[in-house]
Amino acid sequence: MTTDPVKLTQDLIRCPSVTPQEGGALVLLEALLSGAGFTCTRVDRGGVSNLFARWGTKGANKSFGFNGHTDVVPVGDEAAWTHGPFSGDIDEDGILWGRGATDMKSGVAAFAAAAVDFVKDTPPDGAIILAITGDEEGDAVDGTTALLDWMAESGEAMTDCLVGEPTCPETMGEMMKIGRRGSMTAWFEVTGVQGHSAYPHRAKNPLPAMARLMDRLASHELDQGTDHFDASTLAIVTIDTGNPASNVIPARTKATVNIRFNDTHSGASLTDWLKAEADKVAAEFGVGIEMKVKVSGEAFLTPPGALSELISRAVTAQTGVTPVLSTSGGTSDARFVKSHCPVVEFGLVGQTMHQVDERVPVKQIEELKAIYTRILRDYFA
Amino acid sequence: MTTDPVKLTQDLIRCPSVTPQEGGALVLLEALLSGAGFTCTRVDRGGVSNLFARWGTKGANKSFGFNGHTDVVPVGDEAAWTHGPFSGDIDEDGILWGRGATDMKSGVAAFAAAAVDFVKDTPPDGAIILAITGDEEGDAVDGTTALLDWMAESGEAMTDCLVGEPTCPETMGEMMKIGRRGSMTAWFEVTGVQGHSAYPHRAKNPLPAMARLMDRLASHELDQGTDHFDASTLAIVTIDTGNPASNVIPARTKATVNIRFNDTHSGASLTDWLKAEADKVAAEFGVGIEMKVKVSGEAFLTPPGALSELISRAVTAQTGVTPVLSTSGGTSDARFVKSHCPVVEFGLVGQTMHQVDERVPVKQIEELKAIYTRILRDYFA
Repeated sequence: MTTDPVKLTQDLIRCPSVTPQEGGALVLLEALLSGAGFTCTRVDRGGVSNLFARWGTKGANKSFGFNGHTDVVPVGDEAAWTHGPFSGDIDEDGILWGRGATDMKSGVAAFAAAAVDFVKDTPPDGAIILAITGDEEGDAVDGTTALLDWMAESGEAMTDCLVGEPTCPETMGEMMKIGRRGSMTAWFEVTGVQGHSAYPHRAKNPLPAMARLMDRLASHELDQGTDHFDASTLAIVTIDTGNPASNVIPARTKATVNIRFNDTHSGASLTDWLKAEADKVAAEFGVGIEMKVKVSGEAFLTPPGALSELISRAVTAQTGVTPVLSTSGGTSDARFVKSHCPVVEFGLVGQTMHQVDERVPVKQIEELKAIYTRILRDYFA
Repeated sequence: MTTDPVKLTQDLIRCPSVTPQEGGALVLLEALLSGAGFTCTRVDRGGVSNLFARWGTKGANKSFGFNGHTDVVPVGDEAAWTHGPFSGDIDEDGILWGRGATDMKSGVAAFAAAAVDFVKDTPPDGAIILAITGDEEGDAVDGTTALLDWMAESGEAMTDCLVGEPTCPETMGEMMKIGRRGSMTAWFEVTGVQGHSAYPHRAKNPLPAMARLMDRLASHELDQGTDHFDASTLAIVTIDTGNPASNVIPARTKATVNIRFNDTHSGASLTDWLKAEADKVAAEFGVGIEMKVKVSGEAFLTPPGALSELISRAVTAQTGVTPVLSTSGGTSDARFVKSHCPVVEFGLVGQTMHQVDERVPVKQIEELKAIYTRILRDYFA
């Protein structure tokens, strides 16, 4: 008897595991995996639940890992859902509805079902590891990072890892991700001296300095892209002063800038550049400029090679589609895994993720399990 | 018996004439002036009260006018006042306290007392006109403008006019105003297309265009000033977007700009310039830029001549100080009078105007009455 990834997705959707609630999802997976001979360890940290599961020998030379998350984003306007967000209903067109249907209870169900059946049918010479977190949609501080920290302490290791996030924009199989751009946000505050608009020489207006700084940052070409990455981008997301009086020169103004950068930069190199530009403008205008920076993730790349070829072969064999090797999109937990071992992301079509009426064709879940099964077979062949 | 300008100021302060309330102030002045032989007409329009008073022949060849206002700005934090804002208290140091003590119930009291005593002592060959409004601190739509409109309809005219606003920065007598800069405000809204910070090519960020436009406007030299005017100034007073999400590119952003301009420009010429700059940036960035403009007052100048010399002589004779001929500061009702006849502003020291604890030394009010009396004597000599 094989494990049904569709039924498993339904069961997981029925666990209301909105971050940071465990909601029963990891308990359910632990029962399934333990029953199939996996050694399971709950790695809970900072109020977040995570599950580590290994089949085979600890420290094996070949140890294939799957990474994913069972937590989901909030349901939004529950009344607007066609089917309940935790119903896991399958309609007559074969569509499965619910929060996490694409992001990514289906992905977790597909790799768990594939792994359970694979070790039963053809026990591999090596190990299979499932590192499943309950904190990917939140701060992600005590999620995959906690699992990787615990693995390092415990002598557990993956030689390669696949993150099962949805990666296909429209058609099953069309895209995998071999890296991600980095992301950082910078907050600027320019401080001058308040005064009357009629007497600007007695004041020090922070706004011309802010306009100059923002113009310089926005018109600067960070790079032209690389073989694997698009050009880095900088977006001014807001400038705010909040001065309602047209006869008053304000004392301060604020702005926020968001940068998505490729691997020709780092959070540190961009912070240095921003600081230098701010200092230049501060000196030119005689104002104070304070800057605060948060780097959400560094750019990283798993260069095309054995792992991406393995996945590409499996996808093409199953779907007839050759996946593009992309580095587009936001961040994912692959940004943590990349420090541990080569990592590639591949999953189903993510169009409805985070939306009301998140849903997925059950056929896609079955196809995804088949692809993951081919990957395991090929990896351990 | 002479008319005491200090007592009259006290009486006026005790009338709570916060714009647009008449508060009894004009009623009090009308009684005083009627009793002294002035023909008084209440010119009320749009819920605002104004008082026109003439001594002498209508349409006389020499007709000296005084302009001023009895309305005052709100008291602000009443509890913070040392003496009640409508108390008109005089303390042991000879300081008179209350809202309007400098701006400008004292000025109105000084010219009313000077005029009343002057026509009694030395009836002039000509006319003296007092045009007193109750709407200078508000919109000023139905104030001095209403008086001037009514005068034109009624065949009333001044050949010269003195506005009794406080004009001296620190020392009595040091400054008169022979003109004022113009003032205008422009509101800009830049519209693009909202999107995700990670995919800026799918959005159209309005902020780089706004930064460029504001940088161009703020760094442009409007002029270098003239013999009588400082250089025109442009102040960006606010830029606002209100986007709290660093992963979102906003659809629109707004900014406000205030310009104080001399008589090398007009509201219309500056509007044309602003529009041209906005259109250029809109084309460069492919965004929409809407602009709304309000011209509060055009620049004007009463060139140094007979009127300013007359006032200068009187000030120097009384105080020993030679007043500077200035065009600095904000707007005043002189901007309306200038279309009617030559106009100059002269009054006392305005340091505490609009503040809590507005106050004036009673000596200054007496000195101001003496200066206004000298002006009348000299004018009709």
